[in-house]
Amino acid sequence: MNNPRLALGVDFGTESARALLVRIPDGETLATSTFLYSHGVMEEALPDGTPLPEDFALQAPGDYLEALEETVREVMREAGAGPSDVVGIGIDFTACTPLPVLRDGTPLCELPEFAKEPHAWVKLWKHHGAVKEAADLNRAFREAGAKWTERYGGALNLEWIFPKMLETWRQAPRVLEKAHRFLEASDWVVWRLTGRESRGSCAAGYKGCWLGDGYPPGEQLERADPALPGLVDRLLGKEFVPPGKAAGGLLPEWAERLGLAPGTPVSAPIIDAHAAVPGCGVGEPGKMVIILGTSGCHMMLGEKEVLVPGIQGVVWEGILPGFYGYEAGQAAMGDLFAWFAKNALPAAYSAEAGKRSLPPLSLMEEKARAVSPGKTGLVVLDWWNGNRSILIDPELKGLVVGFHMGTRPEHLFRALLEGAAFGTRVILDHFQEHGLPVTEVVTTGGIAGKNTLFLQILADVTGRTIHVARTDQACALGAAVCGAAAAGEDRGGFPDVARAARALAGAPRASFHPEEGARAAYEEVFGLYMELHDHFGRGGSDLMKRIPR
Amino acid sequence: MNNPRLALGVDFGTESARALLVRIPDGETLATSTFLYSHGVMEEALPDGTPLPEDFALQAPGDYLEALEETVREVMREAGAGPSDVVGIGIDFTACTPLPVLRDGTPLCELPEFAKEPHAWVKLWKHHGAVKEAADLNRAFREAGAKWTERYGGALNLEWIFPKMLETWRQAPRVLEKAHRFLEASDWVVWRLTGRESRGSCAAGYKGCWLGDGYPPGEQLERADPALPGLVDRLLGKEFVPPGKAAGGLLPEWAERLGLAPGTPVSAPIIDAHAAVPGCGVGEPGKMVIILGTSGCHMMLGEKEVLVPGIQGVVWEGILPGFYGYEAGQAAMGDLFAWFAKNALPAAYSAEAGKRSLPPLSLMEEKARAVSPGKTGLVVLDWWNGNRSILIDPELKGLVVGFHMGTRPEHLFRALLEGAAFGTRVILDHFQEHGLPVTEVVTTGGIAGKNTLFLQILADVTGRTIHVARTDQACALGAAVCGAAAAGEDRGGFPDVARAARALAGAPRASFHPEEGARAAYEEVFGLYMELHDHFGRGGSDLMKRIPR
Repeated sequence: MNNPRLALGVDFGTESARALLVRIPDGETLATSTFLYSHGVMEEALPDGTPLPEDFALQAPGDYLEALEETVREVMREAGAGPSDVVGIGIDFTACTPLPVLRDGTPLCELPEFAKEPHAWVKLWKHHGAVKEAADLNRAFREAGAKWTERYGGALNLEWIFPKMLETWRQAPRVLEKAHRFLEASDWVVWRLTGRESRGSCAAGYKGCWLGDGYPPGEQLERADPALPGLVDRLLGKEFVPPGKAAGGLLPEWAERLGLAPGTPVSAPIIDAHAAVPGCGVGEPGKMVIILGTSGCHMMLGEKEVLVPGIQGVVWEGILPGFYGYEAGQAAMGDLFAWFAKNALPAAYSAEAGKRSLPPLSLMEEKARAVSPGKTGLVVLDWWNGNRSILIDPELKGLVVGFHMGTRPEHLFRALLEGAAFGTRVILDHFQEHGLPVTEVVTTGGIAGKNTLFLQILADVTGRTIHVARTDQACALGAAVCGAAAAGEDRGGFPDVARAARALAGAPRASFHPEEGARAAYEEVFGLYMELHDHFGRGGSDLMKRIPR
Repeated sequence: MNNPRLALGVDFGTESARALLVRIPDGETLATSTFLYSHGVMEEALPDGTPLPEDFALQAPGDYLEALEETVREVMREAGAGPSDVVGIGIDFTACTPLPVLRDGTPLCELPEFAKEPHAWVKLWKHHGAVKEAADLNRAFREAGAKWTERYGGALNLEWIFPKMLETWRQAPRVLEKAHRFLEASDWVVWRLTGRESRGSCAAGYKGCWLGDGYPPGEQLERADPALPGLVDRLLGKEFVPPGKAAGGLLPEWAERLGLAPGTPVSAPIIDAHAAVPGCGVGEPGKMVIILGTSGCHMMLGEKEVLVPGIQGVVWEGILPGFYGYEAGQAAMGDLFAWFAKNALPAAYSAEAGKRSLPPLSLMEEKARAVSPGKTGLVVLDWWNGNRSILIDPELKGLVVGFHMGTRPEHLFRALLEGAAFGTRVILDHFQEHGLPVTEVVTTGGIAGKNTLFLQILADVTGRTIHVARTDQACALGAAVCGAAAAGEDRGGFPDVARAARALAGAPRASFHPEEGARAAYEEVFGLYMELHDHFGRGGSDLMKRIPR
């Protein structure tokens, strides 16, 4: 290649890491490579066989470095790229996924004296050992009248860094006595690569209670546990860098291991879901990115801070530099359709799908298409996993009303799609009402690629154009965008993330535009949805919480 | 046989007639025989090809006599019975199923001049041509402030005799100008057999607006149509006989045709559903008979007249002589379970049922048994066909609340069974609150024989012992009971229907008793059912009626 300029993104997921090499300025993906973590997710035992309690989910930090080296060398080889072709590196990571380390960055679990201590290992995001600690923290903050929790919908999640750190302290104090830092694995990887310690403002803001101008006040922390103020002060970060800004340059020994040039800028890390924002080409306010997976994750950039009640979080530079990041969620999205496929798809339909060599849900989509918009005869509250936004109530339950003898499986299936779209509309309307207008939507994730009926329904129900991102790897591409922005224009990258995102993400693969007739039909059913939503979700009746199981 | 005493019952259903010969006094069924009507249900054309409008359902009266002769001769032959062995005859019939006849009883459709006139034939119960007439009548009676409609839940059904007669008058006036009577096919058959014209008080009371002491006043009838008072006066009956009382004795020519003795007492006819009351051995107040079919039909005898709001009808001697007859209904019973089998039984379960050679619903019953009472996590409003009692609202719809990702098909199936049982409990409680205590329940019909889990749930939910009638032919047996009672003690029958019913119906085939633990568990869920019932059914929200289709 003649003087190619490339950006490298590495996406650290739950089971594996994936590297992606993208060409500047046109966004052509030249190579991708995936590598499974050698120890995977440790839920039952440590590598030496030490058994783990229930609800534990640990990882080995060395796995990240091994996967990094393997995947980067592979994409470089595959693209035929030379060390100086890569202008910048970005990484995204699952969060909150913290570990305790020494002053020089050595993970405690790699010291022989701590090898058998579960609390010395990486606590993966889905490690759920800190139930009691989360409850203690939330009670203490509530009693202290802590206002800042409103940014997070009023309560901390047991997956976040405070509960995990407090759990470690209470269960294995000697780990945190010995540790110099307790930090996100993403920050640790960047520290390894650059030799400089800092914190990505994304995970720190969304999962680490970093409030932009400090941590919560000591007297509030003390209420939860007298040791907490000291732990926060001693173990958490003090310097923060937003994604798309360089956290440092690549150390010579890592340049050697990866086949890259020393000093290559490394962006501050970004949470994997949030990386989808630049990965979908969004670098400015007004465009919402929705990851349509088993659940739905809705992200927006904003120029001002608004305390939107009932969303998952608002964080300064939590997604990209120079903006507030807003995040909301729908607890069941793909899960709804998977539930139907497993529990409600009748034998006759299954047989028809088999005969025609169709996936069963594709057959359902075909049959549901024949039902007119808003004419299923059913209304669905999509709360199979409770409600994440705007009600933030995990105890809410799914509801279907309107059954009669003529109700067919395609009516129920389409009503589930419509219910999920109504759930999204509630979030969009809510953002809009709080001064955050949503002009367009870009989707990515499992459903976005497959269920075009759902995307059309989403367009009709929300009255917005729904784009599908060009890439299937929005997270890894988003990380590469951050790398290209961190490089800056002078070094062959981009002056800011917005421009990098627009250039590298490219045009949407498909766009679904609202159709007037369908919009009007849905408007009527959405009114019924909201009646049920408010009756069962806003205090009319708490019946859903009283159903015995 | 040495001097056997037998009772003969003939059940005229929608597609066929069935005769049953039962031994007095022990109730042993000696023979049954079924014969399909030669012309069946005419929905598209008359026998000569004359096409029929939509919603028509006609029959040929000659079919009844043919089926009567065939089935009676067959059971006599099969039982080896002689003419004088049969002490009494009873018949039950679908209703309202009227026809126009001449003074000598000749059906108008049998005259050449009327053979091509659809309105001259028998209008089967499910003939739905009188939509407008029913609306006119109900509007007129409402405007006139007619109190008597309260006995029928406030409105006439389009299947009843007034709408059908008015439809005939408006569409084909020359039919009713020529006719001497417009009467139930059941009354016509009894007239044929005995040579005496009378009306069975059961159909007259439940479907014919016979109020016990007269028809509705002329000024009310006139409001609906000026011709109506004259039609009622000229064409309907003036002499009424309750089931279990003799309407006459068998004419010699019919004795000859049937192989019976001349003069054998013939009971006044009874509606087929109502025949199940004596057929289940019930001849006294306090015991409710429920026919568990596609829908549920609940019948009770009472010593006093109570205007129970929201039931289908209260009629003096409407079921058995000497009592008020009360009838209520659940619009979806077996229909609910059939809906599930057709629309919601997943392929994996269907495959398992096939492998184990089980009917799919038997497999569902087995799996649902493993779920604890009241612990499905779901609450179901069983309104798949609307609500017949107590709300009398056909526009209500089914509802399921409580879905989560762990909701399995067996949870939904069991919740449907529980919802149907809650629906029954509402009716029982309602009777009780209006001074009609229900001490025991006897069931018959399709579900009663098959779904023992549902019967146990019904016992636990209602707190009553649920018996299953010994016979599978409760209607035909009930007709035979009426025949035995009509014979009277002197002629080898019984002194009254209660004693005939107890003797001939025998002990229940099975009995399900309430279990304390389950009762308590259901009590909790029933409370939730009633919250939903009242919210959606009693004015809290009319959302169910606004769901577009």
